[in-house]
Amino acid sequence: MWPFAEDEDYLENQWYVAAWSSEVTADKPFERWICGEPVVFYRDTQGKAIAMHGRCPHRSFPLGKGRVRGDVLECGYHGFQYGPDGNCVRIPSQETIPDVCRVQTYALVEKWEWLWIWIGDQTRADPDLIPDHDEIRLTEPGWLALPALTNTLNCRAQLLHENLTDISHLSYLHPGTIGTDSVASTRVEISEHDRFLRGLRMIPNEKLTGFFKDALGTEGPLDREVLIDFYPPNLHVAREKFINPGGDAIAQYRVCHAVTPATATSTNYLVAWSRTFAHDSREVTDTVNSVFAAVIDEDIEAVEAVENMLARQQQPREVLVSADTHSMRARRIMKKLFAEQSAGAASATA
Amino acid sequence: MWPFAEDEDYLENQWYVAAWSSEVTADKPFERWICGEPVVFYRDTQGKAIAMHGRCPHRSFPLGKGRVRGDVLECGYHGFQYGPDGNCVRIPSQETIPDVCRVQTYALVEKWEWLWIWIGDQTRADPDLIPDHDEIRLTEPGWLALPALTNTLNCRAQLLHENLTDISHLSYLHPGTIGTDSVASTRVEISEHDRFLRGLRMIPNEKLTGFFKDALGTEGPLDREVLIDFYPPNLHVAREKFINPGGDAIAQYRVCHAVTPATATSTNYLVAWSRTFAHDSREVTDTVNSVFAAVIDEDIEAVEAVENMLARQQQPREVLVSADTHSMRARRIMKKLFAEQSAGAASATA
Amino acid sequence: MWPFAEDEDYLENQWYVAAWSSEVTADKPFERWICGEPVVFYRDTQGKAIAMHGRCPHRSFPLGKGRVRGDVLECGYHGFQYGPDGNCVRIPSQETIPDVCRVQTYALVEKWEWLWIWIGDQTRADPDLIPDHDEIRLTEPGWLALPALTNTLNCRAQLLHENLTDISHLSYLHPGTIGTDSVASTRVEISEHDRFLRGLRMIPNEKLTGFFKDALGTEGPLDREVLIDFYPPNLHVAREKFINPGGDAIAQYRVCHAVTPATATSTNYLVAWSRTFAHDSREVTDTVNSVFAAVIDEDIEAVEAVENMLARQQQPREVLVSADTHSMRARRIMKKLFAEQSAGAASATA
Repeated sequence: MWPFAEDEDYLENQWYVAAWSSEVTADKPFERWICGEPVVFYRDTQGKAIAMHGRCPHRSFPLGKGRVRGDVLECGYHGFQYGPDGNCVRIPSQETIPDVCRVQTYALVEKWEWLWIWIGDQTRADPDLIPDHDEIRLTEPGWLALPALTNTLNCRAQLLHENLTDISHLSYLHPGTIGTDSVASTRVEISEHDRFLRGLRMIPNEKLTGFFKDALGTEGPLDREVLIDFYPPNLHVAREKFINPGGDAIAQYRVCHAVTPATATSTNYLVAWSRTFAHDSREVTDTVNSVFAAVIDEDIEAVEAVENMLARQQQPREVLVSADTHSMRARRIMKKLFAEQSAGAASATA
Repeated sequence: MWPFAEDEDYLENQWYVAAWSSEVTADKPFERWICGEPVVFYRDTQGKAIAMHGRCPHRSFPLGKGRVRGDVLECGYHGFQYGPDGNCVRIPSQETIPDVCRVQTYALVEKWEWLWIWIGDQTRADPDLIPDHDEIRLTEPGWLALPALTNTLNCRAQLLHENLTDISHLSYLHPGTIGTDSVASTRVEISEHDRFLRGLRMIPNEKLTGFFKDALGTEGPLDREVLIDFYPPNLHVAREKFINPGGDAIAQYRVCHAVTPATATSTNYLVAWSRTFAHDSREVTDTVNSVFAAVIDEDIEAVEAVENMLARQQQPREVLVSADTHSMRARRIMKKLFAEQSAGAASATA
Repeated sequence: MWPFAEDEDYLENQWYVAAWSSEVTADKPFERWICGEPVVFYRDTQGKAIAMHGRCPHRSFPLGKGRVRGDVLECGYHGFQYGPDGNCVRIPSQETIPDVCRVQTYALVEKWEWLWIWIGDQTRADPDLIPDHDEIRLTEPGWLALPALTNTLNCRAQLLHENLTDISHLSYLHPGTIGTDSVASTRVEISEHDRFLRGLRMIPNEKLTGFFKDALGTEGPLDREVLIDFYPPNLHVAREKFINPGGDAIAQYRVCHAVTPATATSTNYLVAWSRTFAHDSREVTDTVNSVFAAVIDEDIEAVEAVENMLARQQQPREVLVSADTHSMRARRIMKKLFAEQSAGAASATA
């Protein structure tokens, strides 16, 4: 799917953020579409989260409409039960269980409040490939991390990636809250790191918006460093650092944007944030949550509007400018990953 | 359409339940899609029900939005009138009426509260092919028969056929009302009859659900016989028979499920039921109606959920088990009917 | 698209009514789809209306969600600004502006309360090709002209053209308001004029409906002349003339129906009307507006119902009668225009 080749919709052999810990319970199954497949989640009697393919192989009923029975998941249509390994363990109407009666399971890793799922060849699921949660400041001491928002967007994931890696849009899509004129006019410095692609803007002497004044408890101006680190193919970590005239960072926050394809044209979007300041202030939490909700709504409206345009004009001519460097580098990384995947598939076939 | 061949959507040269008697009046036309075509119904001045193709051949306006004028149906756009034989009898703007100005009519038979329509070659419409309404207990003395429910489902008809011919789902989709654990675990006996395919379960010493206690006015336990007779390609007659320890049938009811394709992926579903007991009890009627409404809603949610899965995965792999014997026999009958239809079409062409 | 060839959706090199003057302001951009493209409108600081292609060439964001900044239109995503000539004049993140960064503009002519847009080769936009607004009675002295209604219909434009050029439907779709039995039964006289195709009906001694009695302030009967002039490919001007027994026209009104394709299966419909009588009566205005709104709603329901039929049966067999002469002549003109367009495109390619 544009901007990739027609059959390039999902990157496999990757960890994706699948769900919040709180979404997955022992009470009832939870379904979410990931990379074009229905996935169903539940917790066993030990509290361990389990993910399996969400279509009952018997008659195609969604297992997400079933029941958790202790350690097993029971289909809501004819009562077939599947254990944590995906094997059918009970067919109510007969004693014998055919070997083929099983569903695929997925490796799941629970870190902080997130459940990461491995999509692809399950033998290759290496937890070390998951981004370090200290590094992204969800578990680092001194940072208070909070779940923020969950949405399913009616657009292809790449539009959200390119929204997040081109924050020159802040000045126009989010004016008055997180966007000032200087964001768009400040030069972005791109750097490639081991696990992520960084875009950094340093804005000296930034006049603070009302939001920042409220959140930081200061009138400013302050120096502001904005960076966004793209962990391909599905995580963006934005950082705001505010530095006083004496050169001290007085406040930082991070926003982790997990971008998980649902289908070719819809995308799960799970957002968390963490901060170094005012840990005990419920008021600061509420202020930031409410502004983030508004900002994310603006982003969603924008990327869905672009998706609508693409539905009419499927191979759009694009005029790219220097502010697109970050997002075009991100796109190139995605293209490379798709190319590697295609090459791997071709060699597996040959 | 799966599980049949791609162009196998409708079986022609068949009677289908088209409507309730009460839906078709002399006041205004009534439209229902049947086997991919719009059909319009009304009654003439003698009260006879008439069915014709629902598209005005003049400018494709739906005749269902027209008016009944005595014995004729008037298009609501330009006032063309069609008589009970489908011939145009008036064109307001001219005297002469072209011979080609006519719509197809359909044989209709009104039996009990049902209007049966013949879809296909109208010269072959033999009323004797309609299932015997005494046999299905809609007109048999000693049985009180009532219309129950009308729905249009967003799924292919076959999913409803396979729901109805595999009642092992009762234990899981309808627990607490008509489903007990014993339904799924009891062996089904299949038998082929002249006009129908029967699946029979005999459940000895059944502990009654609250619903059955209320409806039957007894605490039980009772022996319970559940059978479902499939009259291909469009009617299922379910029977519940309750037998006391002395071996006497103390109560029976039948549910007639008429399954009439609307389009390839939508289905008209008209349900009637009849009972041998408590004929004078409005309370029993209300109890059963209310439980049936809930049960049918559960069935509809299930088959529409499966249709949604099929929309994503059009040729699903299925694991079939012994409880599927009845529904797979029913599917095989449908496949045979489709094959005969294709063969007939081929020989007609040759 | 039926009744034309599959790729014949829009006629180019034509003026279309794009918008009401009041819809286009200096406050914010206004988007309307026209002939398959998003078009965005705004007014510059001199009040001049400007139309440009509504997709930002940078990242496909709809310019209709942007902002008017003095004389320029600013994209709401990354702040690119486009001048009235469509050239990009500002990219916030850089000094240089690539030549390719521009959007197509469209010739616009503001006449009366209408903005006419030229779709096609902009060098051929000749304002003299726009129908004379005196002739269509929007600007003729003695006539009071008023905007009436704006709708986007879920149907191809041709269905509305054929609704408007076959007013024998008035008797059946609009009985009791503008339709009497005599409309359908009166012979239509077709005549070709320089710029339009006329269908004329002369109805002697017409018994007035309550609506006409209220609007005209007389009990009648009156002779009634109804004509509809089709200005291909997108304007219909209907006239009602009421003549008293002495032979004097006591009242006339015109209804201008602008039919502008939005997409292949949706249509913008802008309706204006003017009258010779009761210029100072707010009551007459209100009466007519309210009846027109009801009549237009009936037309919309009808043509959308036909579109729904066509969605199922894409090449319908039609039985055409003499009352269709006007609409078939109109269709033939459209076919000819499509054929000329195709020939032009072919010779341009050759």
